[in-house]
Amino acid sequence: MNAEILAVGTELLMGQIANTNAQYLSRRLNDLGINVYYHSVVGDNPMRLKQSLKQALERSDLVITTGGLGPTQDDLTKETIAEAMGKRLVLNIDVYNGIAAFFARQNRKMLENNAKQAYLPEDSIIIPNNNGTAPGCIIEKDNKTVIMFPGPPKEMIPMFEETVFPYLEKKTGQIIGSRLLKVFGIGESEMETRIIDLINSQSNPTIAPYVGDGDVVIRVTARSKDREEADKMIQPVIEKIKERLGDHHIYAFDGEAMEEVAVALLKEKGVNLSVAESCTGGMLASKIVNVPGSSEVFDRGFVTYSNLSKIQELGVSEKTLETYGAVSRETALEMVQGLIKKTGTRAGIAITGIAGPQGGTDKKPVGLVYVALCLDGNLECHELRLMGGRYRIRNVACLNALNYLIKRLRTL
Amino acid sequence: MNAEILAVGTELLMGQIANTNAQYLSRRLNDLGINVYYHSVVGDNPMRLKQSLKQALERSDLVITTGGLGPTQDDLTKETIAEAMGKRLVLNIDVYNGIAAFFARQNRKMLENNAKQAYLPEDSIIIPNNNGTAPGCIIEKDNKTVIMFPGPPKEMIPMFEETVFPYLEKKTGQIIGSRLLKVFGIGESEMETRIIDLINSQSNPTIAPYVGDGDVVIRVTARSKDREEADKMIQPVIEKIKERLGDHHIYAFDGEAMEEVAVALLKEKGVNLSVAESCTGGMLASKIVNVPGSSEVFDRGFVTYSNLSKIQELGVSEKTLETYGAVSRETALEMVQGLIKKTGTRAGIAITGIAGPQGGTDKKPVGLVYVALCLDGNLECHELRLMGGRYRIRNVACLNALNYLIKRLRTL
Repeated sequence: MNAEILAVGTELLMGQIANTNAQYLSRRLNDLGINVYYHSVVGDNPMRLKQSLKQALERSDLVITTGGLGPTQDDLTKETIAEAMGKRLVLNIDVYNGIAAFFARQNRKMLENNAKQAYLPEDSIIIPNNNGTAPGCIIEKDNKTVIMFPGPPKEMIPMFEETVFPYLEKKTGQIIGSRLLKVFGIGESEMETRIIDLINSQSNPTIAPYVGDGDVVIRVTARSKDREEADKMIQPVIEKIKERLGDHHIYAFDGEAMEEVAVALLKEKGVNLSVAESCTGGMLASKIVNVPGSSEVFDRGFVTYSNLSKIQELGVSEKTLETYGAVSRETALEMVQGLIKKTGTRAGIAITGIAGPQGGTDKKPVGLVYVALCLDGNLECHELRLMGGRYRIRNVACLNALNYLIKRLRTL
Repeated sequence: MNAEILAVGTELLMGQIANTNAQYLSRRLNDLGINVYYHSVVGDNPMRLKQSLKQALERSDLVITTGGLGPTQDDLTKETIAEAMGKRLVLNIDVYNGIAAFFARQNRKMLENNAKQAYLPEDSIIIPNNNGTAPGCIIEKDNKTVIMFPGPPKEMIPMFEETVFPYLEKKTGQIIGSRLLKVFGIGESEMETRIIDLINSQSNPTIAPYVGDGDVVIRVTARSKDREEADKMIQPVIEKIKERLGDHHIYAFDGEAMEEVAVALLKEKGVNLSVAESCTGGMLASKIVNVPGSSEVFDRGFVTYSNLSKIQELGVSEKTLETYGAVSRETALEMVQGLIKKTGTRAGIAITGIAGPQGGTDKKPVGLVYVALCLDGNLECHELRLMGGRYRIRNVACLNALNYLIKRLRTL
C-alpha cells in the first residue's frame, strides 16, 4: 500500500507554520509498513485543491488530508473530497450533538458554521475529535481510501492514535510494536558506523536512528500479527544494539528525557539532590524541576554566576578562584563540596564553564566545562570540551551532568 | 510571479525531519511578494522526481528545489533538472577549487563523489555554499526559473539570504524592509480583533501575525524601490499598531527575545539583578544567563524548591509558610525581600506557584503563580492564573516576570 499526504492550508504556503503533521503521519505510516511517496501542500483554493486531490487519488492507494475543515473555511476540503469520491454530505446527528456539547462545556454559543461541521460524506467512518469541533472521517471506495483530519496537531494526533492507527493496523493485518532507545555519549556518525549493517540488514524489526537535541534516538519497530510477538521480535534487536553501542550509552528505552530517568532513579534509590550552576545558569535545575514530582528528591539550586556569589553561597576560596580561575577543576570541586556542606543532600552537582561567544582564551577556549559530582561523599570531576553556540554548550553540559549522575546512581 | 517549492528527500517521507525549508522559503518569498501555490516532497526516486519537476515547471514560474545534492546521491536532482531544462552539466573550476579548499581546511580527504558536486548546469548562476560542499545554482530559461539548494537548513538559509534573496529582489524590482514586533500581555485572538482591519486593508506594507512560544509576533513588511523608502513606509504602520495594542504591550521591534530586552535595559540603566525561583526552578535565571554578556548585570539566583530552602536561603518565616502557604502573595514578597537583603542587588525577582499537573486545590489551582519584584526598595507583587501544561505554566510565568521588570526599568 502506498500513501500520500495532502495538506490544505494557506498558512503553510505563507510559511506561518511548518508541516509537522506530514512528518508525524509519515513516521507513523512507516511504522505500519505503509510507503509514503509524496507530500503536497495546497492553499484554500478550490481549483488547485481539486486538481491535487485528483492526482493523489490516481497515484496513491491511501490519501490522507490535513486541514481545511475549520468552521470558517466553508468545508472546502470536505465538499471537494466527497465530490471526488462520489459521496453526498449528510448530517450526522451524533457528531452534531457532540459539537453542541463541546460548546456547552465551554459556555460558548454554537454558530451555524459549527453545525455545518456535522455534515459528513455518506457511508464514511467518523473519527471523533475530543479536542476540537471538526470531526475527521475515513472514506473507502474502489480500493482507494481517503482519510480527512483537521489541521491543528493537538487535534490530529490524538485522532490518529485513537481511531486511525488501529484502523490501519487492521487494514494491513499487522500489529506494531515499537521501542525508543535514547543514546548519549556517542556521536551520530560513530553510532551509525557501529550499527549501519544492522540498520541495512533488518527489515522487520526496522531500526531507524534520529538526531535529537544533543543526543541520538533509535526507534526499533516490529510488525507482527499480535503485540506479544512484536515485543518478542524487538528484544533481541535491542540486545544487539546494546552490544554494539555499549550498554552504558543507552539511558532510556521508551523515549524518556534524561532528567526523567535521573529523577526516577533518585526516587528509586531514595537519594536527594542539590545543584550549583555557573555557566548553565539554572538550566540543570530547570530541567529537573520540569519533571512532575521532582520535589520529592530535588532540594534546591544555586545559580552562582559571579565570583562573589561562588564565595558567599558555596564557600569557594578566593585563592582557588585567583590561582586556577572560575572555570577550573579546582573551583568545580570546591563548588560541589560547599554545596553539600550547606544543603546536606546525598547527591550534589556543580557546573562551571565558558559558554561563549566571548570569554574564551587559547588555554581555556569557549566550550570548556567542568562538571563535579558528589554522591555520599565520593567526589568526581569531568572536563568537557563542547562545540556549538551558547545555548547548545549549556544544554549539552547539563545532559552530561545528568548522565554522570545516572551512571553513579546505577551503581548504588 | 508564482512559485512552488519541491523538496527531494526520502528522510522527509520517512518522517525523520520536518520540511522546515519549505516554511522558511515560503515566508521569505511572501516577503518578496511572490505567491507560493504549492509545496511538494518526493523521495530520491528518479521517475517520481522527474514527473514532479515536469508538473512544477508547467504550473509555476519559479521552482525552488531543496535536497538531493549530497555526494552520495549521484546528483539525481541536478541531472534531472538539467535534463528538464535542456542544459548539459559542465565542470566549474571555481567550485571545484572551493570544495577542495573546504576539505583541506578540515584535514579531510576529498572523494570522487565530492568532485562530482563541481559539475553544474551550463549557463547557470552559482550559489556559493560556505557551510558545506554542495553549491546551489539558478537556471533561467523561457521565462521559467529553477533554483536548486542543498537540503541542510544551515547551508540553505545562508545561501538563500546571501545570493538568492538579492537576486529575487532584483528580479521583482523590489527591495524589502521588515520589522518584527513582539507583543506580550494580549492573547492572540484579542490582538487579531484589534488589528484585523489593518491586516486586511494593508497590502504594502503587509501585517502578518504569528503565534510564538507564549507571546505573539507581528511581522510588518514593506516592498519598495529602495530600503530607505521601505523603512519610511513601515514606521506609520508600527505607530498604528502601537495605538491599537497599547504601547506597553510591544516589548521588541526587531524580534529580540524578552530576556535580551531585559538584559539590555539592565545594562543601560546600570541595574544589577538577582532572582529566587520556586516553581520555575531555575528557568528564569537560565533565560537571563543565555544572553551573552549577562554576567555584567546578573549576580546570582536561588532555586528554593523546598520549604526548608526558602527559610534557610531567603529567610522566609516558618509562620508565613504555615499561615499562607508556599504559594501565596506573602511568601513571594518575603522571598524577594530576603533575596535583596542577602545579595544587595538593586533589582530582585521572586516566583512561587503551582506548575502542576498535581498539587492544585480548589482554592489554589494549578497555574496559580505569584511574581514579586523589588527595584530600589519598591515592592510589587502580581497574581497570575495560567493555563496549559507544566512547561508552559513555568515558561509563561518567567515571561511575565521579565515583562514586569522591563516595565519598571523603563520608568527609571
